[in-house]
Formats: sequence, C-alpha cells, structure tokens
Amino acid sequence: MNEARQRGCFIAVEGIDGAGKSGQSRALVTWLRSLRLDVLHTREPGGSPGAEEIRQLLVTGEAARWDTLSELLLVYAARRSHLTQTIWPALEAGRWVVSDRFADSSRAFQGVAGGLGLEVVEQVHALVVGDFAPDLTIVLDLDPAVALARTVRRGGSEDRFEKKGLAYQTRVHEGFRALALRSPDTHLLIDATPPVEIVSAALLSAVAQWLALRLPKDRLPKDRLPKDSR
Amino acid sequence: MNEARQRGCFIAVEGIDGAGKSGQSRALVTWLRSLRLDVLHTREPGGSPGAEEIRQLLVTGEAARWDTLSELLLVYAARRSHLTQTIWPALEAGRWVVSDRFADSSRAFQGVAGGLGLEVVEQVHALVVGDFAPDLTIVLDLDPAVALARTVRRGGSEDRFEKKGLAYQTRVHEGFRALALRSPDTHLLIDATPPVEIVSAALLSAVAQWLALRLPKDRLPKDRLPKDSR
Repeated sequence: MNEARQRGCFIAVEGIDGAGKSGQSRALVTWLRSLRLDVLHTREPGGSPGAEEIRQLLVTGEAARWDTLSELLLVYAARRSHLTQTIWPALEAGRWVVSDRFADSSRAFQGVAGGLGLEVVEQVHALVVGDFAPDLTIVLDLDPAVALARTVRRGGSEDRFEKKGLAYQTRVHEGFRALALRSPDTHLLIDATPPVEIVSAALLSAVAQWLALRLPKDRLPKDRLPKDSR
Repeated sequence: MNEARQRGCFIAVEGIDGAGKSGQSRALVTWLRSLRLDVLHTREPGGSPGAEEIRQLLVTGEAARWDTLSELLLVYAARRSHLTQTIWPALEAGRWVVSDRFADSSRAFQGVAGGLGLEVVEQVHALVVGDFAPDLTIVLDLDPAVALARTVRRGGSEDRFEKKGLAYQTRVHEGFRALALRSPDTHLLIDATPPVEIVSAALLSAVAQWLALRLPKDRLPKDRLPKDSR
C-alpha cells in the first residue's frame, strides 16, 4: 500500500442470476462518479484478460461440464488474476472499485447451493484472498422464480448456472440472504422486486447512509458526499 | 469402488519438460499391453474435455500470464475433472492407467520452483484429491540444460513453462529428484541421459522389478507377468 495515498473503497454487488446486478451496479457507479470519485467498474468471473477466459469455461456449456469443486477452483483462479491485475492495483492507486459479484457468490453458489459447505470455500478463500474483503457488499434480493424468468427472456449463451434450475437458484438465493443477514455491518440487503428506478433509489439511499455511518471519515475526501447524507 | 472387481494400477510418469516423458510412457504402455493388461494412456494437464481446455490456458502464452497460485488452482481444477471423468472410472472398471504427469508436477513446478511451498500444494491436494495417489511414480532424470535444448528443438506453442528459463527448470528438476528420493517405495528415479532405447530398457526392467516386489500379489491377475519377473 502507498502510505501517502488513501486506499479506495471496494463495493461488491451480489445476487442470483436475473436479480438486476449489472443495471443496479451501473446506477451505483454513475452516482459515485457524480460525487467526483474515480471509480473502476468490474465483474466476476472476469475482470482481467485471464479471468475473462476462465469465465467462458465457467458460464457456458452444459451444467455437468464441471463438478462443484472444479467450479470453485476455476472461480478462485480467476479471482486471483482479477485481484492481482485489476482490483488491488486500482485500490492502491486510490480508485474506488465496484464489482458485479465477488466472494459471496462463491459462498452462495459453490458453498451453499453446490453443497461443498462454507468451510471448504473459506479454506480456499483464505489461501487465495487472505483477509482482504469488500468494504461493502450489496445483495439484491429477488424471488428466484421471477429472476429465472428474467434470465430466460434475456437469452444468450452464458446460461450454464441458469441450467441448474430453480431448486439450485433457490438455494443460491437463501445462501445470499443468510450471508447478508449475518453481517449487517458490511452488507446491505436490497429488495429488488419493485421497478428498477425504485430499486436504484432505495439502493443509492442505503449506500449514502452506509457511507455516512460506517465508513471512517478519513476514507472519503472532504466535500465528496452531499452534506445531508453525512 | 466395485468390490467384485480388482481396482487397476495407476502409474504416473514425471520429469522436467524435454526429459522424454511422452516417448518413455508410450514404451511403458506398449509393454504393459503386451502383458494383456487393459491400459488407458492419459496426460496432465488434460485427459478430459474440460481439463484439455484448461491445459491451453496453462501451457500457452506468456510466462507472466498467471501467477503461481492461479497456476496451482487451474492445475487442480483440471486434475479434478481428469480424476472424476477419466482416471477414477477407468481404475474402478479394472483398467490400468498411465498418466504423463500427475501431482508431483504440482509439487515440483508450483510448490518448489514457483516458490509456493509444498504445504500450500498439499493443502489444495488434500481438498481435491484426498488420499488417492499413484501406485508408482516414475521420474525421468535429465540435466535441465540438455532437456531445455530438446524442447527448443521441438518447438510448438505449448512453451509457457519453458519460457520461465533454465533457473526455473533447474528448480523443478531438483524438486522432482527430492520427491523421488524421499519416497523410494513408490518412486523410481530413472536416468534419462542415455539414448532412448537404453532408457526404455532400464525403465521397463525397473518397473517389472517394482511390480514383482511391491505390488500385492492379488493386484495382478495370475499369469499376467512373465514368470521370471515375479
């Protein structure tokens, strides 16, 4: 870490497939940039050239292409590349980073829904990531049946996890909820059922409040947040 | 495991790039088949459709494409696929399996030469492979400078590890030697310096002796080994 420069803030946006992560994270990034913050918007699996190649192995093809343990190892190989090549350099340069998905996805998908258990995920996580963690994780909470119907309408070839079906997505959903509820200091659980503009307004309001309450005052340059939200 | 059927034997052929693994393992497979054994010849990284895709990520491109920890996770994702889809089903069906490379390559390349340390490799290994291990590991022992010159003559695009240079290959070589010497019951260290036919003869002779001495008698169907080698 460059001691002379304040490390940027790392925010992960999580949720099941079809919960609206990419749209809501774009709204969040736009709002953070309107506060004159320098924000890098990235995603997992992916976010570096190598990790994007691993993404193709993970999210395309048949559900049975990989067993859950292979999935976990591929996800963490990609995450390692993403961290060392993209996330850590950006944070050390003082930039903020917003990532669509991060480690809670491994916990909910492979640990809970895939049945590996959280202990196995935490073992690999400790090896690869150490004690680095998002400052804030936003979990978009949506009925799995509604979310799955959205992904079917969206189409595309990146549907390997959707092919695992509603029972699987329901376990992922329960995993995300449990992770958010057990760590309220670092997690915001946002109801993603209303129209997208309403969800965005609720999300930005909750993030503004979180920044004002939880983030140490010296982590934000002065005058970067509207006065009414400090 | 099918209790009614004797599990096949698993032999790994190891050594630095250019030590002559593929040629010597072909000679070994031909000899085992001449004993009327049903032998599957496979390789790592690879040996299943998914693992062959991961192989391309690992062995092509620039040396700096992955850090050592990403390499290890990719190797073990491929190994998991190879084990569950290819090796374990074959052994359970009573077939013998000969693999060009297996876990000692992770120990020598990522653990020793890459600097991760054997403990980190064993931690991931225990998670992914459990206590499964080759019955026999053959290590082809060749001066790294001679081996590297061979790989340069051979050419091809699968040269990412060769690009790490002679100092790296020398550490891999030392890693393989140390692994062979610490476990003489399960490892044969074969001098790969002489002409290939001489190396083959030494290798087959050593394997025949190992089978006669070390393999429990009931692991080989009767009359499958020449009488003079039992």
